[in-house]
Amino acid sequence: MQTLKISLAQLNYHTGNFELNTSKIIQQILLAKSEGADLIVFSELCVCGYPPRDFLEFKDFIHRCTLSVNAIAEACVGIAAIIGSPTINPKFEGKDLFNSAYFLADGKVKHVTHKTLLPNYDIFDEYRYFEPNTVFEIIEYKGCRIALTICEDLWNINDNPMYIKNPMDELIKQHPDVMVNIAASPFSKSQIENRRQVMIDNVKKYQIPLFYVNHIGAQTQLIFDGDSMVVDKDANLHSQLNSFTEDSGLYELNISDKSVKTLHQQKQKNASTSIENIRAALVLGIKEYFRKQGFQKAILGLSGGIDSAVVLILAIEALGKENVRVVLMPSRYSSQHSVDDALLMAKNLGVQYDIISIEETFNALEKTLAPQFGKLPFSVAEENMQSRSRGIILMAMCNKFGYILLNTSNKSELAVGYGTLYGDMCGGISVIGDLYKTEVYKLVELINANEELIPNNIIVKAPSAELRHDQKDSDSLPDYDLLDKILFQYIEESKGPNEIIASGFDEALVIRILKLVNTNEYKRLQAPPILRVSQKSFGFGRRMPIVAKYLS
Amino acid sequence: MQTLKISLAQLNYHTGNFELNTSKIIQQILLAKSEGADLIVFSELCVCGYPPRDFLEFKDFIHRCTLSVNAIAEACVGIAAIIGSPTINPKFEGKDLFNSAYFLADGKVKHVTHKTLLPNYDIFDEYRYFEPNTVFEIIEYKGCRIALTICEDLWNINDNPMYIKNPMDELIKQHPDVMVNIAASPFSKSQIENRRQVMIDNVKKYQIPLFYVNHIGAQTQLIFDGDSMVVDKDANLHSQLNSFTEDSGLYELNISDKSVKTLHQQKQKNASTSIENIRAALVLGIKEYFRKQGFQKAILGLSGGIDSAVVLILAIEALGKENVRVVLMPSRYSSQHSVDDALLMAKNLGVQYDIISIEETFNALEKTLAPQFGKLPFSVAEENMQSRSRGIILMAMCNKFGYILLNTSNKSELAVGYGTLYGDMCGGISVIGDLYKTEVYKLVELINANEELIPNNIIVKAPSAELRHDQKDSDSLPDYDLLDKILFQYIEESKGPNEIIASGFDEALVIRILKLVNTNEYKRLQAPPILRVSQKSFGFGRRMPIVAKYLS
Repeated sequence: MQTLKISLAQLNYHTGNFELNTSKIIQQILLAKSEGADLIVFSELCVCGYPPRDFLEFKDFIHRCTLSVNAIAEACVGIAAIIGSPTINPKFEGKDLFNSAYFLADGKVKHVTHKTLLPNYDIFDEYRYFEPNTVFEIIEYKGCRIALTICEDLWNINDNPMYIKNPMDELIKQHPDVMVNIAASPFSKSQIENRRQVMIDNVKKYQIPLFYVNHIGAQTQLIFDGDSMVVDKDANLHSQLNSFTEDSGLYELNISDKSVKTLHQQKQKNASTSIENIRAALVLGIKEYFRKQGFQKAILGLSGGIDSAVVLILAIEALGKENVRVVLMPSRYSSQHSVDDALLMAKNLGVQYDIISIEETFNALEKTLAPQFGKLPFSVAEENMQSRSRGIILMAMCNKFGYILLNTSNKSELAVGYGTLYGDMCGGISVIGDLYKTEVYKLVELINANEELIPNNIIVKAPSAELRHDQKDSDSLPDYDLLDKILFQYIEESKGPNEIIASGFDEALVIRILKLVNTNEYKRLQAPPILRVSQKSFGFGRRMPIVAKYLS
Repeated sequence: MQTLKISLAQLNYHTGNFELNTSKIIQQILLAKSEGADLIVFSELCVCGYPPRDFLEFKDFIHRCTLSVNAIAEACVGIAAIIGSPTINPKFEGKDLFNSAYFLADGKVKHVTHKTLLPNYDIFDEYRYFEPNTVFEIIEYKGCRIALTICEDLWNINDNPMYIKNPMDELIKQHPDVMVNIAASPFSKSQIENRRQVMIDNVKKYQIPLFYVNHIGAQTQLIFDGDSMVVDKDANLHSQLNSFTEDSGLYELNISDKSVKTLHQQKQKNASTSIENIRAALVLGIKEYFRKQGFQKAILGLSGGIDSAVVLILAIEALGKENVRVVLMPSRYSSQHSVDDALLMAKNLGVQYDIISIEETFNALEKTLAPQFGKLPFSVAEENMQSRSRGIILMAMCNKFGYILLNTSNKSELAVGYGTLYGDMCGGISVIGDLYKTEVYKLVELINANEELIPNNIIVKAPSAELRHDQKDSDSLPDYDLLDKILFQYIEESKGPNEIIASGFDEALVIRILKLVNTNEYKRLQAPPILRVSQKSFGFGRRMPIVAKYLS
């Protein structure tokens, strides 16, 4: 019986940190070798981290990738490895680079396969850098014929194919024994199931087993859940690595009958619900933002509302309560219950807290601007002055003590511009900016499932910005249940006004909401980076004109 | 003698404003018809404006494009027109859209040509939306064989071809009489000459005359200079429309000998210098941002430094002095000369000005934060508190009176992070954020060429943020002459540290500067949109990771 022992390495890389990435990869190769693996598979562009973005335009950056590949190749003695790295396109015409998978063995580069299908939608920009592959060749190693592809190469299998050809349609003609795919497929709430289905669909189509390795970790907005997997030749999910953590597994492929067997793998966690995955993703996103930037400590404004309460819980989970500080910043318009509820929560959780009134700053601003404002009535100017006073205070704490400010805006308010630029929109990273308000409530349910970490008062009260007397979100916005349904159709589903109205919503309301979304694009352009958990997050993956006149 | 009378229409469109764009196009068609034109040519994607960005993902948006095309086609009786619009790709595979040129005549769509080369670098994302063309067909009209292409289709002619094929190499086989290219080619300081050369090189290669139509106007960051042109068959620039303004011209093409003749054209302005073009571009950029968003009035902080002085002059040129208000915001660290110089400038120019001290606000903040800050020494926290107090005051004026805040940061300080997020980095639009400090001085020379609009004191003083006693930019940064040279190589030329050092700069300094650029990416992510005048502006066209460890 001829077999190939394949190790999957699901690791966390740091973009541009060549020393770290290279030594991590080499260590894992040596470990797999000691476990008897014939081949170890890493993820897409693991050498430089994903996404490298415009660093790819620097020859120096590409040169460092090449040095890493060579160093890793030298470690491949008695074991083969598949790693991802950009490669220089030797041809005069076309883009300067390929997105490549290197097959390393006998201390050398044995084969280089390039990516054929270059994703260029949502957060992906690969055609910006890479020339698509046009050469299809099986890799033979120890009697095993490997069809090696890179991420998107297996994804042109759905209802609306974005590409004209499928690389596997070419490779299958050469009778491979197994598919190997190296990926950088970021998390979103529907992606885990979606991705699994795509991999299963590939095996159904090509009828050979599949070994799939994805990144874990996060790079600013993008969170990678891992979920590397083995699909057997009958299209059953044979095995899956653990989500949101580094993991590895060793499998044996029987080349004759193409069956697979697990030799070694960590215990697999039970399947998680969608909201549990979101929580894990956000916690990982915070943790990684801090760790990879070299920061320890977070600060946030705790208002007594639900958004900052959730962010506090996630921050504690990510950084530890000793690394999280909250600031309560009451004003004349703050209700007593908001202050009390925030205080109760901070005390219960045992985080360091400060109560810093904004009254003095707000008064000073009012007095300073009195010659200009005269007798003009209280307006959004005074509301924003309060929110911005809080922003200054939080940023001053950051600058003085080295905190990073966590932004607490949610997706619903970012969508309609219900927030103050340079005020509550401040922050290094937006934690829940890709969760609609109704999803924030679902997350609260999960957080409070075993213990009332978020006081019930905070949950049941009507949402309010408390920037004027008796203000409620519902004064300016429809109920979040209704609002979020309209927003979802517009933002996630790209539906136009007529389609949304036809699905049963009030015409005037739909027109008004869409106009709010479009006219507030300028605010979102200056928002912090948002941890992405949906298929369409504000920020890099949604590129909208500022100056425009469409539905606005 | 068989001739074709061709009109070029260089117009200003508003993204998503279908009514406006359609009626503008139809009016111009009727005008050209009245002047005897056989054919009128508009620019790329004129129907929806350029760039439409992710509006292209909305079926509703595409539907409105189609309605516009049909309405314009109906106006094409007794005249033909070439317009640009997205088209739905009828095939199942591939992207859903094409970027198309419509040939309209006899009240109908006669022919649709798609764009072959889809730019996907810098600020361009066309492969995000469009499938490349693969069919090459000459259009015959009134005995003239027209090779119709779209913008980038003619640009694969330089030293480092990004694409594998040239559409004109296919079209030329069908013996066309003339090339027509419809474009959306944004301004940058080298682009005018560059573009002219590319068009001339195409004529040299294919040896038939070229009619080229570009957009004018601006869409947020992107400024279109126009410079539509006719190149005769001997590769001479026969005619060029005026820059930075709507313009049109009527020409006669002799189909037999392929000579061209001007029938009607506005007087052409004299050629401008590079810095004159930059000035015109920035003025247009400001003007368009306000006009297309429906705003009239701008406000800015006038510090007594050179950056805000330049922005004030440009704002007055764009909006009129009656629409510009300046605020002087001295603190205990402001030098008397800064206040005096700013005041003198405001008075000389006759703009409305306010002197609003930040002392009271800054004092209130210091007092409010005293329990937390204790006896800790004055630091960047207090510096930023001052800058952010100014930000709040300016934004409060905006919110109260309906001003848009003009940001006054320059490219050098944005590059190295020498600015305060939510402080002097506030604003609706950044006017000189794509000009290095040394370029700002060049612009001042031009501005003051005939009259001392900017007081000499402001020009000769050493740059300072005045956020602590006796602070000078040169305390923390090298001389701008030196700094800007290093920045240019890194940002515009994508050179790595070794290449920059090899060109004669101190190693430690280069390493330090590059690290500053990379570690301050997070600030620029939250900066206002920047009017783009270089080949590599911060913002949409430069996509860098935040969390990374490369040269940082």
